Amino acid sequence: MKKHVLLTPGPTPVPPQVLLSMAQPIIHHRTPQFEEIFAQMSENLKYLFQTRNDVITFASSGTGAMEASVVNLLSPGDKAICVQGGKFGERWAELCRAYGVEAVIIDVEWGDAVSAEEIERVLNKHPDAKVVFTTLSETSTGVATDVKAIGAMMNNKPAVLVTDAISGLGGMELKTDEWGVDVVVSGSQKGLMIPPGLAFCSISPKAWELVEKARCPRYYFDFRKAKKNLDKNTTAFTPAITLCIGLNEALKMIREETLEKAIARHARLAEAVRGAIQAIGLELFAKKPANVVTAVKSPENIDSGKIVKMMRDDYGISIAGGQGDAKGKIFRIAQLGYMNEFDILTGLSCLEIVLARLGYKFEMGKAIGFAETKFQETSS
Amino acid sequence: MKKHVLLTPGPTPVPPQVLLSMAQPIIHHRTPQFEEIFAQMSENLKYLFQTRNDVITFASSGTGAMEASVVNLLSPGDKAICVQGGKFGERWAELCRAYGVEAVIIDVEWGDAVSAEEIERVLNKHPDAKVVFTTLSETSTGVATDVKAIGAMMNNKPAVLVTDAISGLGGMELKTDEWGVDVVVSGSQKGLMIPPGLAFCSISPKAWELVEKARCPRYYFDFRKAKKNLDKNTTAFTPAITLCIGLNEALKMIREETLEKAIARHARLAEAVRGAIQAIGLELFAKKPANVVTAVKSPENIDSGKIVKMMRDDYGISIAGGQGDAKGKIFRIAQLGYMNEFDILTGLSCLEIVLARLGYKFEMGKAIGFAETKFQETSS
Repeated sequence: MKKHVLLTPGPTPVPPQVLLSMAQPIIHHRTPQFEEIFAQMSENLKYLFQTRNDVITFASSGTGAMEASVVNLLSPGDKAICVQGGKFGERWAELCRAYGVEAVIIDVEWGDAVSAEEIERVLNKHPDAKVVFTTLSETSTGVATDVKAIGAMMNNKPAVLVTDAISGLGGMELKTDEWGVDVVVSGSQKGLMIPPGLAFCSISPKAWELVEKARCPRYYFDFRKAKKNLDKNTTAFTPAITLCIGLNEALKMIREETLEKAIARHARLAEAVRGAIQAIGLELFAKKPANVVTAVKSPENIDSGKIVKMMRDDYGISIAGGQGDAKGKIFRIAQLGYMNEFDILTGLSCLEIVLARLGYKFEMGKAIGFAETKFQETSS
Repeated sequence: MKKHVLLTPGPTPVPPQVLLSMAQPIIHHRTPQFEEIFAQMSENLKYLFQTRNDVITFASSGTGAMEASVVNLLSPGDKAICVQGGKFGERWAELCRAYGVEAVIIDVEWGDAVSAEEIERVLNKHPDAKVVFTTLSETSTGVATDVKAIGAMMNNKPAVLVTDAISGLGGMELKTDEWGVDVVVSGSQKGLMIPPGLAFCSISPKAWELVEKARCPRYYFDFRKAKKNLDKNTTAFTPAITLCIGLNEALKMIREETLEKAIARHARLAEAVRGAIQAIGLELFAKKPANVVTAVKSPENIDSGKIVKMMRDDYGISIAGGQGDAKGKIFRIAQLGYMNEFDILTGLSCLEIVLARLGYKFEMGKAIGFAETKFQETSS
């Protein structure tokens, strides 16, 4: 009778109505029926991305869309600035190197965020850099980057701004067009509330100019092929049909809630978690915390992996541990996608029980008390 | 009250129990629970591929695994032989060119198959060709290629043999190890009976030698990254979790039927369709027809697209039209995956009704009569 609760930063819980939409008999993709679904889905993606640019959908993990951004914008020998403050920031540089692109690294301490000024300094030193790769929400550290300020700073610069919003989109503010983000990359299993297997890129006119000149080899992830097919409400290669159908349902739910309210919901849940954690004497890992995932330093002498394992194995509640250098040192609780106050309270409650079992000293119920009070005060 | 019947060569019908397995609450992929599913799935893929080689799974369409085969085996400037007798054979050459690999084309007339002798002749002329790219079942023409004979011919040759078995696997004999096929590429939405979104490559020790030397750039589709993770029962990047869960169920069904019987079932259905079509005076398009899809020449003066559209729009029965040069000239009925005698009879029956409505002259019921007799004679 264990009830499983997913509070991980991807995959996130899939609403039952979305799961059931994907369990219907499969339909063929080269039909008016699927093309209509795909057109709706692509239109609603624009709403979510807050853009008038085309949003391209690939059948792949989020990394596929990151690769697409590298190979469609750059040529071997080109230079790109990669902000690296966590596992996913590092991926930008790895991708650049794999394709012979020179990666100028901005190393950010894990838990900290890059500033627009720092990027400007590096851009001035490397005015030939064609692209700046950033991460809106660095899932491995729980850090939010001020993409708005970076966009404003890059407004009159020739370089193209790319943001990995795989875990941020739908849960954090990201005004693609207003902020001047040329390429926004995302994935399906985070704020979009469906299983993994779809990835997305929005592409600005400024980015399209680079696409025409880029000489990195590409085929499956070719923006040009994708765009030609998108204009006909289809994909270059067989789409992940059921995931598109599920996404269409999930996007309708987001439109119904409205993006504004969804973002406010994530902020409210995140504030409650941050306060609750601190109320029992724990420290946040991120200096500039994202609203989609809260990274918490594990109490001294308690390996964070033990907390994660006990919560999952003994109680069925899944949170995430630390990755890379942060392994064993932090745990991460997501406030992402199809989650509400009571999912969060369940997670915090389980955390209190497990912390007590592992010998951490604190007043039982205090985290919950803080979160409940926060929720009560902000009830609409 | 229209009942939809899918008789297309991908996507193919997904068994209801598989659909429901994917509609369960999603689980996290970095857990013992998912790793066990992934290990079972990977083991059962080996059974399906009839190989002891590792079978790698990507979150992508089948084309992604084709691209993986090109970039992991070859370097820019290398030479590869591409057999081109349909839309999917052409994709090999397009992929090679995209990555700077010289494609030596063997042009095969649409509807015909390449012979092992023809490939040998070209290989002798280009002894430096590192890879031969073939297609087991060319979905666009309904043609089967004698991969067994090609494997035998290449037995003592240095070149590596790659076969696109995207639509063939699970429905046609393909003894990967016994025949000496170094890389077998497949996809999820055909004989594997699940929705599109997963793609596969099996890789022989001989192929691995090329992988170590290949210098085409790669990241998302890197065999080495995938293999390192496969050994830990996981994937390099977030897997398409629900599709893996569905595939695990579908593969259990295939093991229960046995691969031998599944292949015999496809052959039996295909024989019935071929005979039925000819019984009403129509001609097969393929000289060497595959057992997974039957391509039929449309009667003179009837655009095959009209047949497909009327069957789908008026009766809910989906078959496929012609692609590329064969557009309007052929239609294609699949015998692929989760299909039995009565699915086929339903399709043939609808075809008779539609042909009659479009003015084609034949004795109504004759196709059905032939197929029924065939099924009766071969009942076990």
